[in-house]
Amino acid sequence: MDIVILGSGNVASHLGKSLRNAGHDIRQVWSRNIHHAEALAHILQSQATHQFDRLLIDADLYIIAVVDDAIQEVLKGMPKVAGCIVHTSGSTAMDVMPSGISNYGVFYPLQTFSKEKNIDFSTVPILLEASNESTYGLLKGVAFSISGNVQACTTAQRKIIHIAAVFSCNFSNHLYVIAQHLLEENGLEFDLIRPLIHETNEKIRYHFPMDVQTGPAVRGDQDTLRQHGEQLTAHPDWLAIYELMSDAIWKEAKKGE
Amino acid sequence: MDIVILGSGNVASHLGKSLRNAGHDIRQVWSRNIHHAEALAHILQSQATHQFDRLLIDADLYIIAVVDDAIQEVLKGMPKVAGCIVHTSGSTAMDVMPSGISNYGVFYPLQTFSKEKNIDFSTVPILLEASNESTYGLLKGVAFSISGNVQACTTAQRKIIHIAAVFSCNFSNHLYVIAQHLLEENGLEFDLIRPLIHETNEKIRYHFPMDVQTGPAVRGDQDTLRQHGEQLTAHPDWLAIYELMSDAIWKEAKKGE
Repeated sequence: MDIVILGSGNVASHLGKSLRNAGHDIRQVWSRNIHHAEALAHILQSQATHQFDRLLIDADLYIIAVVDDAIQEVLKGMPKVAGCIVHTSGSTAMDVMPSGISNYGVFYPLQTFSKEKNIDFSTVPILLEASNESTYGLLKGVAFSISGNVQACTTAQRKIIHIAAVFSCNFSNHLYVIAQHLLEENGLEFDLIRPLIHETNEKIRYHFPMDVQTGPAVRGDQDTLRQHGEQLTAHPDWLAIYELMSDAIWKEAKKGE
Repeated sequence: MDIVILGSGNVASHLGKSLRNAGHDIRQVWSRNIHHAEALAHILQSQATHQFDRLLIDADLYIIAVVDDAIQEVLKGMPKVAGCIVHTSGSTAMDVMPSGISNYGVFYPLQTFSKEKNIDFSTVPILLEASNESTYGLLKGVAFSISGNVQACTTAQRKIIHIAAVFSCNFSNHLYVIAQHLLEENGLEFDLIRPLIHETNEKIRYHFPMDVQTGPAVRGDQDTLRQHGEQLTAHPDWLAIYELMSDAIWKEAKKGE
């Protein structure tokens, strides 16, 4: 497949590498910043551009992997192309595409991408939506070339999945950030709780989170909750999170009874 | 080492099994509920009691692994024993011990224990505090018999570690609970985001959470934040968590600039 990637961030980079490893030809990388385009194009043995009027118009697939806010702008800037156009955003509707384009869709890899770490795409769910059946077939072929977990997904479902992803990935990471601060402020190392974080998540691989909730809030251990609250008074932001999360855990536990 | 375990919950069970596997003799299991005591004693090839006046008084080590609220009550109920007494609580001070006892301490395994899943203790940090050097030596020997990660830890440090553990383990699990609800309410399976949760935590094994924060909040992606907020209006509790966490992530990002 001949592919053009628009974007040079984490999704563009990881997806581009994975597609290239699967044997696709990444013919061009576009980025507003030519240095970023060149850096990624170099890795993908591709050519770079930052000008829409230099965009190749004869590729099979155009993957717009830019921040959500910029998708519309990229779509407006692009010349008319023959191939299929997709974006990779969890929270952007498929019908963001301008009228006049007939083959378009969404190619959403449900994963967190950081420049610090490579991704094994083979187990990453790829959620697809397409404007018509032939486009869906094309996207399915590309998706299956990099992952064994490919599913159809409507815009409405994808938006819910994206919110669930924000809760379980972005927010949980922030809880680790708070833990890191708490430990380091007290001369302790984050390493101490790495085994705990690992185990917490190992449990989730084979159980449902509802079945493995632990801690003072679910036990209704008021002494500990009060004591923790007192210890967090110097950090009102963390205290607010502590109280809100503890209340939510307690409510959830009551609901299950 | 001759050991008596007081308690029959998750910590008592997992710790008891691990100690027994390391070759210690769990001579007795006490629980307020004789059926629970018998069930655990059976697994540990030990004897069971629910009566304090039947407690063996000649063991080397008494491990009180009950809910925090019940530690004092157990201490009051126990007959005078010759051996060392420890509790396993993250948030309870060492000096909870009644006067008149001289060999006591804390044996805190920093891990989350569920009845659903076995634990490999070899990497679990065991945090120790003791009333005197000989007791510390004894606890250190027992701890190293089950784990390669044994550290001294004051009551003040342990309380901070426990709060950090609540944030990173208990609260993150509740975020997964919310994600599960969101998905299931919309006919989607929790399985979909398991690879994402796994990857989020793989990152944390080798990076600091501060360095790998992703998502709309850290990018300041107002469109997505607003859209997610609108989609959560039917769930005010989750919306409150969404807003508080997103604000906290944004503040943290600004701090780092």
